[in-house]
Amino acid sequence: MTRTAEGRYQAEAFPDWDIFGVTNGGYLLATAARAMAGEAEGRTLASIGSRFINPARPGPLSISVERLKVGRTLSVLRATVTAADRPILISDASFAEGSPDPIESVLVDGSPPDLPPVESCVRLEPADDSPLPPPFSGQVEIYLHPEDLVYFGEEISRVPLIRGWFRLLDRELLDPIGLVLASDAFPPAVFNSGLPVGWTPTIDLTVHIREPGPHEWLRCRLSTRFVTGGWLEEDGEFWDVNGRLVSQSRQLALLAR
Amino acid sequence: MTRTAEGRYQAEAFPDWDIFGVTNGGYLLATAARAMAGEAEGRTLASIGSRFINPARPGPLSISVERLKVGRTLSVLRATVTAADRPILISDASFAEGSPDPIESVLVDGSPPDLPPVESCVRLEPADDSPLPPPFSGQVEIYLHPEDLVYFGEEISRVPLIRGWFRLLDRELLDPIGLVLASDAFPPAVFNSGLPVGWTPTIDLTVHIREPGPHEWLRCRLSTRFVTGGWLEEDGEFWDVNGRLVSQSRQLALLAR
Repeated sequence: MTRTAEGRYQAEAFPDWDIFGVTNGGYLLATAARAMAGEAEGRTLASIGSRFINPARPGPLSISVERLKVGRTLSVLRATVTAADRPILISDASFAEGSPDPIESVLVDGSPPDLPPVESCVRLEPADDSPLPPPFSGQVEIYLHPEDLVYFGEEISRVPLIRGWFRLLDRELLDPIGLVLASDAFPPAVFNSGLPVGWTPTIDLTVHIREPGPHEWLRCRLSTRFVTGGWLEEDGEFWDVNGRLVSQSRQLALLAR
Repeated sequence: MTRTAEGRYQAEAFPDWDIFGVTNGGYLLATAARAMAGEAEGRTLASIGSRFINPARPGPLSISVERLKVGRTLSVLRATVTAADRPILISDASFAEGSPDPIESVLVDGSPPDLPPVESCVRLEPADDSPLPPPFSGQVEIYLHPEDLVYFGEEISRVPLIRGWFRLLDRELLDPIGLVLASDAFPPAVFNSGLPVGWTPTIDLTVHIREPGPHEWLRCRLSTRFVTGGWLEEDGEFWDVNGRLVSQSRQLALLAR
């Protein structure tokens, strides 16, 4: 990514980060997050929202960033991502000066997903002869719980739940922007429910960063509780290996037809 | 609200819609939603996101709306709310042409909160001699589950859960904009957890509309699962009297000090 002027960035949607030919949403949102971070004066991403407007394909991206507030402890920024003057996504984010409060975890009603060790899980890898798993899945390391083997087909759980391990290639450590990428990297949990499988476009995606890291392995749980009127939400929880919640995500998506 | 030009609106944050002197966030977001609806050519609000920038006090508000996409079935709009040129909140929304798909509820993993009849619940009413319950609570009808009697104190559940009934005054029916208002109308669920009670500023708030209505009574459940590093999320589920999910909300907020 290149900063061409104050609040102006040029980036590239690389090939092989796609699903059904459309660039992955988490990858695009991480691009927007990185541009906003470039204008956040060293503050740490705490929360990011987004709304997807048009599908992106590989090629150049322009990101414009507005700084709307620089407060004592929080900054608010807004980004617009375009490709050839076509809007792709809008995003907004809050960046925090350190941790907003030294209070540690005071209430935790939940626990990491129960996962077998990485070596007993199944790596998600792009298929040569099928659109799924998508090319994108080769750009990260995702190991699925053997009970949640979406795409592998024989024993689909019929529960819209996906659990698995996530890390970056080459053991690159995850910062908050990596956590944004992780939030939309797994197959849609709804693929495990017996409903139609196909392109599941994200309408909006919000990620809350609870532990900025750096992290290596994440233990991840994605689930959908409601599919109504063609809409579905997907909630993600991402935990570190010490059992601490590092981020939460929610997206609204359209059910594949 | 007055439309002064294409995409330009003037509104007023009325007194008595506040908590600790700060105008309620759901009320402000509903104002942004109404302005965006004014530019959405009759389409129906399906999803709205927001980020709060500065607290608002009673007085004039300006809302500017950009229409970013008008697609075959979905439109995307963005709003900026300012008071005396100070940014208050930014918001973005997707509006749908009818329902995006005639598929009915195909997956529902959840149920309405178990609530006694309205007459066995306790109405939340503004206190004369205390900032809580806030003036805002007199502008709507909220009846709390007797087991979740935040503010009333004697038998606090110590579980960050609030269940109750909601409707508008004078039995005005709820449209999607009313559902946005409802999403931030209850006391924070965290008030029931034994943690400090006070102003709990919303950082971001997203609402997904599943059944646009009109609705009269809503059965509501708000809960917080994680309070870490001074942050907390609050998830809301809103159901109609026929047991259908009408909306979901999530917000990130700061724990009161």
